Order: sequence, then structure tokens, then C-alpha cells
Amino acid sequence: MEAPPYSSEGAEYPDSMLSRKFGREVVNYFSGSPLNRVSFLRSNTSFLRAALPASRFLLLRGLDPLASSKTNLGWVKYDSVSSLIGKPYDLDEEKTIEAFDSRVSAPTLIFLGLDEKATDSTFEYSGAGGNYKGQPFFALDVSPKEGELKEKLEKVAEEAVKEPGYEFRKVRIDLSLVPGDAAILAHARSLMDWNSRNQFCAACGGRTISVHAGTKRTCPPFDKAFQKSPNDASFERPPCVSRKGVHNIAFPRTDPTVIMAILNAAGTHLLLGRQRRWPPNFYSTLAGFCEPAESLEEAVRRETWEESGVRVGRVVIHSTQPWPYPNNLMIGAVGEALPDGEKIELNHDPELQDAQWFPIEKVKAALEAPQNGLHDAPPEGYKEGDLRLPPATAIAHQLMLAVANGFHLPSSEVAATAAKI
Amino acid sequence: MEAPPYSSEGAEYPDSMLSRKFGREVVNYFSGSPLNRVSFLRSNTSFLRAALPASRFLLLRGLDPLASSKTNLGWVKYDSVSSLIGKPYDLDEEKTIEAFDSRVSAPTLIFLGLDEKATDSTFEYSGAGGNYKGQPFFALDVSPKEGELKEKLEKVAEEAVKEPGYEFRKVRIDLSLVPGDAAILAHARSLMDWNSRNQFCAACGGRTISVHAGTKRTCPPFDKAFQKSPNDASFERPPCVSRKGVHNIAFPRTDPTVIMAILNAAGTHLLLGRQRRWPPNFYSTLAGFCEPAESLEEAVRRETWEESGVRVGRVVIHSTQPWPYPNNLMIGAVGEALPDGEKIELNHDPELQDAQWFPIEKVKAALEAPQNGLHDAPPEGYKEGDLRLPPATAIAHQLMLAVANGFHLPSSEVAATAAKI
Ligand SMILES: [Zn+2]
Ligand SMILES: [Zn+2]
Repeated sequence: MEAPPYSSEGAEYPDSMLSRKFGREVVNYFSGSPLNRVSFLRSNTSFLRAALPASRFLLLRGLDPLASSKTNLGWVKYDSVSSLIGKPYDLDEEKTIEAFDSRVSAPTLIFLGLDEKATDSTFEYSGAGGNYKGQPFFALDVSPKEGELKEKLEKVAEEAVKEPGYEFRKVRIDLSLVPGDAAILAHARSLMDWNSRNQFCAACGGRTISVHAGTKRTCPPFDKAFQKSPNDASFERPPCVSRKGVHNIAFPRTDPTVIMAILNAAGTHLLLGRQRRWPPNFYSTLAGFCEPAESLEEAVRRETWEESGVRVGRVVIHSTQPWPYPNNLMIGAVGEALPDGEKIELNHDPELQDAQWFPIEKVKAALEAPQNGLHDAPPEGYKEGDLRLPPATAIAHQLMLAVANGFHLPSSEVAATAAKI
Repeated sequence: MEAPPYSSEGAEYPDSMLSRKFGREVVNYFSGSPLNRVSFLRSNTSFLRAALPASRFLLLRGLDPLASSKTNLGWVKYDSVSSLIGKPYDLDEEKTIEAFDSRVSAPTLIFLGLDEKATDSTFEYSGAGGNYKGQPFFALDVSPKEGELKEKLEKVAEEAVKEPGYEFRKVRIDLSLVPGDAAILAHARSLMDWNSRNQFCAACGGRTISVHAGTKRTCPPFDKAFQKSPNDASFERPPCVSRKGVHNIAFPRTDPTVIMAILNAAGTHLLLGRQRRWPPNFYSTLAGFCEPAESLEEAVRRETWEESGVRVGRVVIHSTQPWPYPNNLMIGAVGEALPDGEKIELNHDPELQDAQWFPIEKVKAALEAPQNGLHDAPPEGYKEGDLRLPPATAIAHQLMLAVANGFHLPSSEVAATAAKI
């Protein structure tokens, strides 16, 4: 089955003044999840206990999801995983933390949310001040592991791929999943990766425990592994700063990253760059991590100057895209070079092999031609020497498209351009 | 000395088409740092060695900065700290990691950047592909600590406050620092907090070492504390997943947080809420953490619904603000409720005590009256029962101001409004 070509649909809302002023909202690939995360229900074990038997489970093995085809994720039901997951929500959260025993291992299980539009689910939960309906979804780690869970993990993974067409797929490169499934995978993958890299507390070095249905890892004050006899109540762990005050280390991290279409001051050219290991003629917008205590606008200006020498003035945020490798949030911006800051200098940060000002018309032509990924051979019809750009699944593409379509123009010029067409 | 009132200046750039279309860029408090971070020089020990003796140092004790007055940070010179910091950049980074000894402690030292506009510095460095000039700045942790550094830390902290007016100030509440100093403090404080909470590797539980001049913590493969004899070369630590592949745990985390001015569909009212422990009549815009694999626009919609029941359509990003408690990045958005989604329901997430639709005129009047912080008594002239809003140093204030000034209006209506005035 061929993947359907992705196009960012652009949400238009009824009677929306913001849409009229700023245009349609671009929905980037990996966003637009069909699930309601109902995040306030994650610590509600009564809800979780009720939801579990009615749930569908996305299995991940070494972060590769179970897929039923090139374009769709595969899902399994509770019966297929119940022997592996046991009864994780029988105790409330406080009691679960008190009962922590670092010798016992449990597979990572993450509540993803409810699909309120699913027609084949009758699950319903009343409590916590509301009535919540929809198909519940979880993600479950079935990566091979030594120890007590070894055989159960293997069995669940083996049974799952017996379904015709089902396999654990590496999906990074082709981005071929349909958008809704891509968004669910991004959600599951980011949290799974975070759980796997945070088995220990960064503040004290002790083992952590998963709580909030896979969306928090806390440093328990007790560990039954330290209990000297069944009546010994003094199995405390050393004090840890993460157990008091304002802090963030118990929660998943998301790394804000800026990616920017930089225009020259005249608005005629776009700044694109390329890394050494990219295929010939492949260029994209510049990007980099936002640092602590930087506004996004400052991060755009710093990264652009460090990588290309170009000094940027006004910056406007265009749209955003989750990028689950491992947990980035790409924040797409359009910026303008200062009139006396357009000289390209690559000597500061040796990250780019080249950066150039491309005429917008040339970028537009390359966007109208077919694109594919960095790791693919050039698409059919590609002429040697032509500019290659990232495909529509990348926010870089959407930013360039926005600029090519006049995002940067003042309103009166936009109106004039529109009138001409 | 009284603090000067803060106003977000709004950067206008010459001949800027983006400014003409989108308006001036709002520079929020805690952003607008005067320093060039020259991030690519942080791992260049030749640069760091040269910069150190010419540097100014911001001392922090328990995250409280040395301040010379209510409005300004206090700085000390190299001579005041050299005995404490020793020679941290004598070895290159690779050798520093190889020489790791978990028994030895060093104070956290962070390179902040160069003030290229400083007139009283002659520091200059040529190398790494460029020529870099300006006053170098570092932050240094002088929190009390047991162990070998105890006396040196005490001495540096004691000497620093002998300067008239100098003290270690809690600056959280009053936000009285002048904007440039506030931005430098935000930078120093975020990184200091991150270093102090990441002394251990989240992936393996082993001790970490500070590299990149305080902006990275890595999990060293060797530890001299495990060396059995001076000739023993096998003092390896257990393998750690953080030493290979794509990962993020070695780098500082910044937590993206959405904060949103939500308009009703007619554009006449603004959604504001309040928490239980706030003073009477104090309201602000809703806010919440962005989750993994959520676009910012989705985070705005989810948090608004979870906290208030209101369903939001189009979302536009307005401006951003670093908030160093501990490492948040506030991303300010303006959004519009869906016409059939304006009903307020507080039952989902019990975070807010109240949420209401306020007429924009009433918000405008409250913005024109004096404001102060949550922890202050109401400002002079306040009439019991009047709406209280956050001061101009908060992005919430800037978002409400933008909406009150017509940010949400379609261009034609903006023009009509402007013409009327
Ligand atoms: Zn801990
Ligand atoms: Zn490690």
C-alpha cells in the first residue's frame, strides 16, 4: 500500500476573527491527535482500573511501534497483554509509592487518552466531576528485557506479529503513517523514551517509580529492597531534594527547538542552509535548540547568527510541530534580516556546510516539484542540480510554503497580490 | 531606591515588513539579554582560559543573586573568586572527563556570554574562526556546602557583601531588577538550578560532571574514585545509554508552558481565571505546561478545556517570556472560543477556583489602573471589588494589553478602530 501524500490541512474555525487576520492555522504532521488526553484523570486509579479492560494498546519494541501496514498503527486488546501488565492500578497512587520495591520490575504502561469520536466503543466513566466517554488508548513497552518479565514480554511481542501484515516498524524515515496515527505514535514514543531514560532520579541517583499512568516519575521515600525483616518499618531511602519545593525533574521533558524561515530585508530571498552529510543540493531552513532563559524570538536570532552570521530583526511565530526524536517541539518562525546584517558568515559555529540566500521564486518552484526525505534517492523527474527541499511532513516545508504564499507581506501588499491572481 | 516601572518596549526594526503586518515585537521581562551567548565557544577551553581573568562574576547563594541595590545585580571580579574556582579550564574537555573523580567537588561555574557593548572592557579573543570582543560574564554558585570547599565558599560570600549596599537578594516576588539585569539573572538562575538538580545521571544513577562551561552535564565513563592503585587503568563505570545515540538528558531542560488570552467568538469578552490562594478579585489568563508530542496550539486548547471547559478554535502565538522558576518558557498565545464552546465548566481539573468571561472594556480599565504582584497589598487608589490583574512584568499582562489594543481584530476593523480614535 502506498502512503497517502501528507498535506497540512489548515484548520479554519467558524466566524473566527483570528483566522481572518492571521490566516488558517497550519496543522503540522505529528500534531492533530484524535485523542483527548484528559490529563486530570491520570492519577485517578478508579478511572484507570475501569478503562484498562476496555482499552486498545499500542505496543512499542525499542521505540518501534506495532503497525498493521505502512500507513497505520496496529492495536491489541486487553486480553493480549493482561498477563504482562497485571493489575497496576489496584492500589491508589500514594500506596503504590509506599509499596515501592526496586527489585520488582513492571513494563512501562502509558495512558494516552480517549478517542471520543470512536463509534465502536461503549466505554464510559462517571466521576471526578464529569462524565467521560470514548475509546481508551494505552501504550505499552514490550522491548526485550532480562529478568522476571523476559518470557512474558517475548510472548506478547511474538503473538502480536502473528496477525497478517503486523510488524514492529521503524517509522522514522518514511513518515508514511496517516496523520492521526502519526500524532498518537509521537505521543507514545516521546513518553516511552522519557521513561526509559529516567529510571534514576537526577537529583539523588536513586531508582524512580512510574506514576500518573506513565506521565510522571517520582523518587520514592521508601524501598522494600532495604527492608530488613517483614516487621521492619525503617526502609527509608536517603533524603532527596526532588521530594519538596518547586521542581520539574519528575515530569517529562519537551525540548523547544526553533526552526526559521529568514527573509532578507527586501523580502525577495530566503536563507537556507545544508549540513555536510545531506545529499547534494538538499537545503532547508535553519534550526536549533532554545536555551534556558531565552525567548523564542531571541533563540531565532542567536541560532541564525551563530550558524550563518545573518542578524535578524522582527520574528513572528508561524506554527509548531512535535518531533518525537526524542522529545522536541519544533517552533516554526518567520524572521527578517536587518538591512545591514545580511552577510553570510559560516565561521562561528561549524554546524552548516553552506548557507545561501535563495530567490523566493526558486524556492516556490522547488516546493511545486515533488519532494522526499533526506535518506531517499531524488524523486522521479528530479533534474541534477535542482534545489531539493524537505517534504510536506516537515515544518520546514510548511514555513517555506507560507513565505512563498505571502506570509511576510504587509496586508495591503497581500491584498494587491491576491487581486492580481 | 524605587524600582523603575517596567514597560515592554516593543522592538521596531527598520523597513520591516513583518512589523508592518504583525506589529511591534513585545520584549517581555526576563528576555532581552544584553549578552551574546557565543554558545559555540563554551567547549573551547582556550577561549575560556583567556576570558576567565577578564570576567565579571554573578554570585548566587541558594539561587539568590548578589545584588548591589533593589534594581541592580552586583558583580565581583576574578581576584575575589580565583581561590575558589581554581583552574577549571586547564585541561581540554576530553581530558577533564577522563580525569573525573567523584570524590572531588568543584563549585558550579557557568559562562553566560559577552557584553559586546561594554565600554570598560578590552577583552578580545581571536580563534575558532572569528574575533570576539566584549566583557565576559560568568555565574558562580556560592551556596553553603559541607566538605572541602566549605571555607572558601563562605569566605567569597562574606567578602562580597562587605561592599556597601550589596546583599544576596530573594528577587522572585518583586521583579524590581532593571530589564537587562533581570535577563542575565534568569539565564544564570535557570542553569544553576538545572546543574544542582542533575548531579546524577537519570539513565544510570551515576554522578555527572559539568562540561561546556556549565551548560552540559555528562556521564563520565571513568571515575578515579574506583581506581585501586595509581597504576590501575580499569576504573571504568558501568555502561550507560546516555553515552551513545540521540538523547537529550545531558543538556539543560526548558519547560514550554502555554499562557493564553482567550476571546469569546464575538471578540467582546476575555476568559480569565483565579486560583484559590490568590488575593480577592485577582484574576489572570489561563496557563499550563505543554506536554510531549503536543503542538503549542493543541496545548492551548487542551489546557483551556481542562481548566475552564471552554473549547478553543484558532490560536495565534503573540510573544514569549523566560520564567526562571525553575526553567519555564512562557509562550503567550491569543485564542478564540468556538461559538458553541463558550460555556464555563470547572469540574474537570480542579485547578481554578473561578473562571469568568470579562468584558474587554473592564479588562482595559484594570490595565489602566496601577497593578502589583500577587503577594502585595492592593496598590494605592485600589477600590474594593475592582478587578486586579498582574503587573507589566508578567506576560499575562502583555497578552491582555495586546487584546485590549485590538490584536484579535481583522485588519479592516483595526483600521476602522484606529480611525475613530
Ligand atoms: Zn531522588
Ligand atoms: Zn549514566
